[in-house]
Amino acid sequence: MDMAEKEKGNDNVIFVGKKGIMSYVLAVVTQFNNGEKDVVIKARGRAISRAVDVAEIVRQRFVTDTVAKDIKIGTEEIQGEEGPVKVSAIEITLSKK
Amino acid sequence: MDMAEKEKGNDNVIFVGKKGIMSYVLAVVTQFNNGEKDVVIKARGRAISRAVDVAEIVRQRFVTDTVAKDIKIGTEEIQGEEGPVKVSAIEITLSKK
Repeated sequence: MDMAEKEKGNDNVIFVGKKGIMSYVLAVVTQFNNGEKDVVIKARGRAISRAVDVAEIVRQRFVTDTVAKDIKIGTEEIQGEEGPVKVSAIEITLSKK
Repeated sequence: MDMAEKEKGNDNVIFVGKKGIMSYVLAVVTQFNNGEKDVVIKARGRAISRAVDVAEIVRQRFVTDTVAKDIKIGTEEIQGEEGPVKVSAIEITLSKK
């Protein structure tokens, strides 16, 4: 196993994008079932609303002994078609109580 | 002035909806210019991403001595066409440093 795979294996970060919302919910639930105490849900731009949905669905329906321990917002620069573009970002840390 | 107006007058809450983003930015900036130390930016559903945009634009471009002191997420029940619907919600408190 090379370094990249190792890091990926240890990762408790779920990046929310354009897939169906339940696939991210499942990914987060799986992390908790694997023994993680904290799972970080990240998103940018319009996916921010979906990240909040994911956190709320996990917390209310699947892993009910978790809490949104820390929520950060910020701005990231991504490469757009016409140069760098600033987008808002969110980072929600769901943690076992 | 009746009670409702009084409450409205004291309100440091900006509810982000479907208007142009800069109108919410302006509303928040105005609150700070009127001497508020904290302004609460609220949104539900898809407007959550826009609320983060509003907070980030205010903080980076207009009232740069502010910080997102507190961010809460939750679920609210609204009246849909076919009965009550659950939607995610966010509450960002921007505060003077």
